Amino acid sequence: MTGLRSHPRFVSLEGGEGAGKTTVLHALRDALREDGAEVVSTREPGGTPLAEMIRDLLLDPGHEPPAAETELLLMFAARAQHVRETILPALERGAWVICDRFTDSSYAYQGGGRGLDAGLIAELERRVVGLQPGLTLLLDVDIAQGRERTRGRDLARGANGPDRIERERDEFFERVRATYRARADGEPARFRVIDASQPAQAVAAEAVARLREWRDAAA
Amino acid sequence: MTGLRSHPRFVSLEGGEGAGKTTVLHALRDALREDGAEVVSTREPGGTPLAEMIRDLLLDPGHEPPAAETELLLMFAARAQHVRETILPALERGAWVICDRFTDSSYAYQGGGRGLDAGLIAELERRVVGLQPGLTLLLDVDIAQGRERTRGRDLARGANGPDRIERERDEFFERVRATYRARADGEPARFRVIDASQPAQAVAAEAVARLREWRDAAA
Ligand SMILES: Nc1ncnc2c1ncn2[C@@H]1O[C@H](COP(=O)(O)OP(=O)(O)O)[C@@H](O)[C@H]1O
Ligand SMILES: Nc1ncnc2c1ncn2[C@@H]1O[C@H](COP(=O)(O)OP(=O)(O)O)[C@@H](O)[C@H]1O
Ligand SMILES: [Mg+2]
Ligand SMILES: [Mg+2]
Repeated sequence: MTGLRSHPRFVSLEGGEGAGKTTVLHALRDALREDGAEVVSTREPGGTPLAEMIRDLLLDPGHEPPAAETELLLMFAARAQHVRETILPALERGAWVICDRFTDSSYAYQGGGRGLDAGLIAELERRVVGLQPGLTLLLDVDIAQGRERTRGRDLARGANGPDRIERERDEFFERVRATYRARADGEPARFRVIDASQPAQAVAAEAVARLREWRDAAA
Repeated sequence: MTGLRSHPRFVSLEGGEGAGKTTVLHALRDALREDGAEVVSTREPGGTPLAEMIRDLLLDPGHEPPAAETELLLMFAARAQHVRETILPALERGAWVICDRFTDSSYAYQGGGRGLDAGLIAELERRVVGLQPGLTLLLDVDIAQGRERTRGRDLARGANGPDRIERERDEFFERVRATYRARADGEPARFRVIDASQPAQAVAAEAVARLREWRDAAA
């Protein structure tokens, strides 16, 4: 695997904590299914049994925290597996794949957030992933508003509170947000930035409209 | 981290299954301790709580098998952690570190065995490990003899039989062995090749002699 190939039916959702990625994922999936498509919705880190076990190692604070480089390699190990076991087989049989986070998250969190060299990330992307979404929807919202939403979500679920990465400080998430925005600016053909401070209905409607536009332009 | 730094008190043991690495590790540790040194003996994949959990993911066939790239990245994720949490702190306080397998195993197993590009492995070694043993002892023995020994060991332990990698076919291990030998040929200053078909006592004595020679030459 050497280059980076983009696939028109592969769509990723990106954004900080509580931006609304998972909520929008369901809306996109339902819209494409209404239009008659097969849709595989998946998430990162995760998306295969082994990749979900790697996710648990990444997010569970039940052992010493991973070094930044360890975190990056675990993310890419899970992604290498996810692409080969789940994403490519689905695309090859003609399905759409909608993914809650993909490689842009590594640039934003391990690159922007933790300060790892973007050149190393690009090297891994090119050499072990090789696949890029045709369309990436970036849900942009300020850190405080996102935090408030995840607090509400976790309370409603009776969850154990924030995972290891969600416990980072605001400065970390400001760097994540800035990196996402810089990437969207640098790749306008792939990215659509959505103002995720809007009510959930409006965000979902805008995301569905962008996706249908993209599909119809490609057809 | 950009270059590859060698450390004179960092020693690795390499070789195929049943070559006698773990047996020799104990002999080296005891010899250095007799000489009054602090010695940390450790292994890969593993060597920290998180890295040992990654080891379990790598060797347990309880999920879908990892793709070759996933296997490589998990190995390097564990190694990145091991270097930072265990190996460098020990070297910095003046201890010797003897490691049962290190990066040469990735070249031999994921490179030679699975056919992954050595350039990718070198890139990871340089960018996320950055550390090389001063001395590497390669225990060389033919595949059949090594297999026989591990069978004896696993029976004696009442172990569950071979792990996922030990289940590979002879051709795989022939490529592993050839890669090890080529690496030793290419880096004669770092490697010592030991004929591991000899009785355990003789192998251990030769390994201890090589290590003391190395230490005394460096002093
Ligand atoms: N646009 C929105 N306005 C208000 N609340 C939202 C919005 N989008 C999502 N939520 C709620 O915020 C919480 C986090 O949304 P979620 O989709 O889980 O975000 P993410 O997956 O990006 O972390 C959920 O409780 C969700 O119902
Ligand atoms: N040189 C040797 N000759 C015969 N048996 C050996 C020798 N070295 C080790 N053994 C035995 O072979 C088995 C495998 O040795 P071990 O040190 O666990 O190998 P490795 O760690 O390289 O897989 C053990 O039961 C060990 O006691
Ligand atoms: Mg979510
Ligand atoms: Mg052993």
